[in-house]
Amino acid sequence: MKGYAGKGLKVDLSTGRFDEWRIPERFQALYLGGLGFASRLLYDEVKYADPFSPDNKLIVAPGLLVGTGVPTASKTTFAAKSPLTGGFGRSVAGARLGVELKKAGYDVLTIEGRCLKPSILLIQDGEVEVWEAGDLWGLDVRETASRIRKRVADAATAVIGPAGENLCKIAGIDCEERQAARTGLGAVMGSKRLKAIAVKGSGRIEYADPEKLRGLTAKWTKILKENPNSELDMKYGTAEFYEWMNVEKGTFPSRNWQHGYFQKSFDKLKQGEKSPLDPYYWSPKYTVKNRACPNCTKPCGRVFRVPSGPYMGVELDGLEYETIYSLGGCLEVEDPEAVAKLHLTCDLLGLDAISAGLTVAWAMEAYEKGLIDPGPGLNLSFGNVDAALTVLEMMAAKEGELGSLLADGVKAASEKLGKRSWEFAVHVKGLELPAYDVRAIKGMALAVAVSTRGACHLTAGIYGTELVGKWWRFSGVDRFSAEGKGYEVKIHEDLMTLYDMLGVCKFSRHMFYVEGFPEIVSAVTGLDTSISHLLTAGERVYNVQRCFNAREGFSRVDDTLPPRVLSQPIPKGPSKGSFVKRKELERMLDDYYQARGWSENGVPTKVKLVSLDLEDLADELGSDH
Amino acid sequence: MKGYAGKGLKVDLSTGRFDEWRIPERFQALYLGGLGFASRLLYDEVKYADPFSPDNKLIVAPGLLVGTGVPTASKTTFAAKSPLTGGFGRSVAGARLGVELKKAGYDVLTIEGRCLKPSILLIQDGEVEVWEAGDLWGLDVRETASRIRKRVADAATAVIGPAGENLCKIAGIDCEERQAARTGLGAVMGSKRLKAIAVKGSGRIEYADPEKLRGLTAKWTKILKENPNSELDMKYGTAEFYEWMNVEKGTFPSRNWQHGYFQKSFDKLKQGEKSPLDPYYWSPKYTVKNRACPNCTKPCGRVFRVPSGPYMGVELDGLEYETIYSLGGCLEVEDPEAVAKLHLTCDLLGLDAISAGLTVAWAMEAYEKGLIDPGPGLNLSFGNVDAALTVLEMMAAKEGELGSLLADGVKAASEKLGKRSWEFAVHVKGLELPAYDVRAIKGMALAVAVSTRGACHLTAGIYGTELVGKWWRFSGVDRFSAEGKGYEVKIHEDLMTLYDMLGVCKFSRHMFYVEGFPEIVSAVTGLDTSISHLLTAGERVYNVQRCFNAREGFSRVDDTLPPRVLSQPIPKGPSKGSFVKRKELERMLDDYYQARGWSENGVPTKVKLVSLDLEDLADELGSDH
Repeated sequence: MKGYAGKGLKVDLSTGRFDEWRIPERFQALYLGGLGFASRLLYDEVKYADPFSPDNKLIVAPGLLVGTGVPTASKTTFAAKSPLTGGFGRSVAGARLGVELKKAGYDVLTIEGRCLKPSILLIQDGEVEVWEAGDLWGLDVRETASRIRKRVADAATAVIGPAGENLCKIAGIDCEERQAARTGLGAVMGSKRLKAIAVKGSGRIEYADPEKLRGLTAKWTKILKENPNSELDMKYGTAEFYEWMNVEKGTFPSRNWQHGYFQKSFDKLKQGEKSPLDPYYWSPKYTVKNRACPNCTKPCGRVFRVPSGPYMGVELDGLEYETIYSLGGCLEVEDPEAVAKLHLTCDLLGLDAISAGLTVAWAMEAYEKGLIDPGPGLNLSFGNVDAALTVLEMMAAKEGELGSLLADGVKAASEKLGKRSWEFAVHVKGLELPAYDVRAIKGMALAVAVSTRGACHLTAGIYGTELVGKWWRFSGVDRFSAEGKGYEVKIHEDLMTLYDMLGVCKFSRHMFYVEGFPEIVSAVTGLDTSISHLLTAGERVYNVQRCFNAREGFSRVDDTLPPRVLSQPIPKGPSKGSFVKRKELERMLDDYYQARGWSENGVPTKVKLVSLDLEDLADELGSDH
Repeated sequence: MKGYAGKGLKVDLSTGRFDEWRIPERFQALYLGGLGFASRLLYDEVKYADPFSPDNKLIVAPGLLVGTGVPTASKTTFAAKSPLTGGFGRSVAGARLGVELKKAGYDVLTIEGRCLKPSILLIQDGEVEVWEAGDLWGLDVRETASRIRKRVADAATAVIGPAGENLCKIAGIDCEERQAARTGLGAVMGSKRLKAIAVKGSGRIEYADPEKLRGLTAKWTKILKENPNSELDMKYGTAEFYEWMNVEKGTFPSRNWQHGYFQKSFDKLKQGEKSPLDPYYWSPKYTVKNRACPNCTKPCGRVFRVPSGPYMGVELDGLEYETIYSLGGCLEVEDPEAVAKLHLTCDLLGLDAISAGLTVAWAMEAYEKGLIDPGPGLNLSFGNVDAALTVLEMMAAKEGELGSLLADGVKAASEKLGKRSWEFAVHVKGLELPAYDVRAIKGMALAVAVSTRGACHLTAGIYGTELVGKWWRFSGVDRFSAEGKGYEVKIHEDLMTLYDMLGVCKFSRHMFYVEGFPEIVSAVTGLDTSISHLLTAGERVYNVQRCFNAREGFSRVDDTLPPRVLSQPIPKGPSKGSFVKRKELERMLDDYYQARGWSENGVPTKVKLVSLDLEDLADELGSDH
C-alpha cells in the first residue's frame, strides 16, 4: 500500500526527550489517522501497564480529515489505557488542538513518562518544550487555558482540572470547552503531572490533490448546508430529540434508571405544558450564540447563559442531551439553569459529566435506600441540586469519605460500599451508561455491552437506527427485538470507527455517509481507495482495540449489562415492561461474535485477524476458532 | 482503483457476431478474474432466463493467474444459469483452454444465442469462427476432441458428449479429460447446439512486473515441491485419504447414503486386508503415468489403465476420490476396474460423474424398495455394474422411460416418481452431494446447505478443516458440533472463491495460503493489494452469486439438507448416531447469515452490499436489515 504519510511526535516526560518519526506508508494505509493511529500505537506500546504508571501513554491523534476544510471533520482522538475500565480508553473531541497539531507538522502525538513536577507540554511547530507549571496546578480548566493563552497567544489547549490532578478515574480532558471526557483520560494526564498540552502550528498541511480536495469540500459543505437538519442541529443542539425520546419512545432513563422516562417532563406534557428541559423551551431563552468545532458548518454547540436567579452568571457551551440526562433526569432535576450549573461544575473541575452525574445519581439512590450516610447537612435525596454540587466538588477533590467513595465512578463506588449496591450501579466495564434506555433498544443494548471502552453510545452510534427504525441503508429495524442484531451492531461499529479515524463528526452521520469518503480520502492521501477498503480499515481498527482488551484479560463475561437492565423491566410509559433477558443477551452475543469472526468467548480469531492484515496480532493472541 | 486490465470476447451464436471489449480497470480490481469475472457478468447479463434459452450465457473465464507459471494456477471457470438448480451455475476445471484463451488475448469469453445447426466455436488469436459440425454430433468427448485437434493442431478444447446434446441436466463439459462437470453446463452448451469450443493462442500474456512474477513463481514452485504432501498427491491423487475417511472417520457415505462408510472396505480392514478402492492398493497397480493440469508442479491426475479382464483397455485420467464414492461406495461396487469403467463411461458420455453416480444409486434404492420397475433383464440391485453401465447409457440418451426418469438427476427423478422417493434423494438445490457424510461434519453440512451452486464440497472446501480439526489459522475445530460454524463457513467460502478468481487449485490449499497471494497479484496486475483486499474481493464475488440466486427466488428455505441427513442418523461406525437436527441447521443458518451480513431470510442486506462496493446490487435487491 502506497500513498501519503506524515510524521509523528513522541515525547517522554520523564526525560524531556522528544523524537519525530516518519509514519510508514503501509501504516498510513492500514490505519488512516485519528482513532486508527491511536488504536494501533496503543496496542503496540502499552501492554499490561498500570494506567497511572509512566508506562501508560497518552496518544493524541487528529482525524485524517482534520484541517482539510471538509465540513464537520473536527475530531481528535485521545487514547490511553483507561484507569476506569482497565481496557482500551479513548475519547474523541472537536478540539482545535488537533488542527494546530497538524499545522505544526504532526499527525499523531504520543506522550509517555511522568514529569517530576506539575508541567505543561508546549508544541510550537517543530519546537517542543516541557514547562514547569506549579502555578496552574489546582486551577479549573477555564482559568488554566486562559492563563496559557496569555503566555502563548492563540495556543490551542488540552487541559485537566482538579479531578484529573487528583486521579479521579472519571476525570476528562478539556479542549477549550470541548471535552474528551470519557474513560478517565484526564486522570492519566494527572498521573503524568501534565496539567496541559498547548499547541500552535503555522505550517501548511500537504494534500495529495489540493484542487480536488477543495472541490469536494465545497460540494459537501453545500450538501450539509442544504440539509434541513442542519438548522435544527444549530437551533437545538444534541438535545433536539429530548421530548421525543422521553415521551414518545419512553427511553430516556431517569432517577438512576429507575424509570425509562423523566416523570416530571412526561406529566407536564400530558397536561399540555412544555418541559423545561426540552431545548425547544430553553434554547431560545438561554442561547447567546452558536459555537463551532473546527470546520463545522452546522455548529450544534451553543453558548448558554443564565441571566438571573441563583445561578446567574453561569455560562457554558451546552446543554447537551447527555448532560440533560446525567445531571437532569438521573438526578430528578428539571430546572435547566440548575442543570447548567451542574454541567459547568463538572466541566470546570474536569469531571466526565455523564459519569459524574450517574455517580451522584447512584449515591442518591444509595442514600434514599439508607445505604450511605453522608453526614449531617447533606441531604442526598434526588432533586437536591445543592447537595449534588457539593458532592461533585468533593469527588474532584477526593474530599472526605464520600468524595473518595465516589471519585472513581459507580463501579468502584459500589464495590467499595458493598451492600448489594452493585444492583443499581449503571455501568458496563466501569463506564457509566449514556442517555438511552437500552432495556427497550435491544440493538443498542448489545452495542453497549460489547463496546471496547465500556457503555458507550458512540462506538456503534446505533441508537438512531434502532429508535427511528432506519438509517443509511437500514430500514424496518425493530428496537424491541433481539433477533439479527449481531451484524447490525458490527457494521455500525466499523463505520463509526471510520468516522473517528477520519475525524468526521458522528452528529453529521445522517448527512454524510460512507459513500462520500473514498474520493475525499483519495484527494487527501493519494490512496486508491473504495468503500470496502475504508470499512475494512474501520473493522481492522476495531479489532485492534478488541485485541488490546483481550490481552488485558477481557472476554465474553465482560460483555454484559447492568443488573437493572437485565432484571428490572421499564416500569411505565411507552416502553413499559421491556428489558433485556439474559438469554437474549447471550443470543445477541453469539450473533455478534459470528458477525465479527470472533470466538464464542469473544476473542478475535487468528483467521479474522489475518483477514484484516493483522498477522502479528493473530500470532500474539488470536483465537483458534 | 487502477491497474492492469485486459480484454473480453463476446460471441453471439445466433448472429455469428463477435465483439471484443476492454475490461474496465475498476471491474478488474473488483473482480480480479476467473470466477470473479464470471459471477459479475452472469449477474449483469442473465436475468430470469430459461437455462436452455438463447438468452442464457455461457461464460468461460480463466483465473487471473492462469498462464503465469504460478504453480497449480490452472483453473478456468465455466458459468451459466444452471438447468439443474435454476440458480447460479458454475464449474471449474484445470483446462488447457483457459491458457490458450489468455494467449489469444482474452481474459473472459461470453457465449450467447444459439446456433442454427450443431457447431463448434473456434478462436485462433483474434480470429473467431463458428463452424458447422454435424459430423461431430453424437460422438463421445474423446473422439470429438481428437477430431478437432486433427483439424486445428494443438487446439485446446471444451467439448460436450451425448448427454449435453440431449440436454441432460447433469451433463458436464469435458476439457481434454478435465471436467467442468457440475450444475449441468454441458446441457447449456447443448441447448446452444455448441458441440465444442476450441482455442489456440500464440500471443504473449502481459504482466505488470514480469521479473517480480518470475521470482515469485520460482519461490512458490520450490515451496510446493519441497512440501512432502506433493509426493503423496502425485502418488495417490485425490483419493489419498479414502481409507481414513472410511474407516477412521466413518464419513464416506455409501449405498446411497444409507451408510456412513463403505461396509465392504471396512470389513476387509477389520480382517487385516486391504480395500481394493484404496489408492494405496490400486494406484501402484494401475497407474501408467501422471498427467498434470496446466502449470501444476504436483500433478495428482494419473492415467489409470486396466490391463486385462472384462474391462481390459479401459484407460482414463482417474480414479478420483469423488468417483470412488459416487460410482464405487454409493453403488456398492468395490472393484476399482469396474469403477474405472463406470467413470470412463460418464466421462465419454459427458455426464457429471458425481451426479450420475448418485442418480444411479437413487435408482438402485428405488428398485430395491420396489418403487420402480426397469423392465425385464435389468436388475438394478446395488453392486450390479452391468446394470449401472446400461443405465448411464440410457440416461445420456434419454432412452426409454428409465433413461428419461434419471437423465436430469435425483431431484427431478424423485419429483417425477413420487412415492416418497424424495426421502432418499440426496441433493441440495438439485445438485447431488459429494463424498462427505455431512451428518457427522456439521460445518460442512452448513456449507453444503448454503452453497450457491447446491451441494458442493469446493465452494467452502471446509471438509479438511472439520475432519482434521485444523487448517490454515484454524485449530481445535469440532466436526460434531454445530456451534460457531457461521463465520468458519463464511471465511472458507470467501477464500475458496478467491482461489477460483485466481485460478489456483484448491488441492494445493494446504500449501498455498492467502498470505502468498498479494505480491503475486501485484506482480501480475500492478494493483496495490493486501490480504484484506483479496479476501474482500472473494466476499464480494460470493455475494454477487448469492444475489443472482436471490433474484431468481432463492432464499432461506432453499438452504437446506436432504431428508436423509436431517432425520437418519449414521447407523454404524465411528460416526454412529450423528445427524444434523433441524434445530441445529436453523441455528447454523442464523449464525451464518449474521456472519455474512444477510437478512434472516438469507438475502444480502443493502448495507453489506454497499460495504462491498456493490451499490447497484444493494439498490436492485438488497434486504433492508
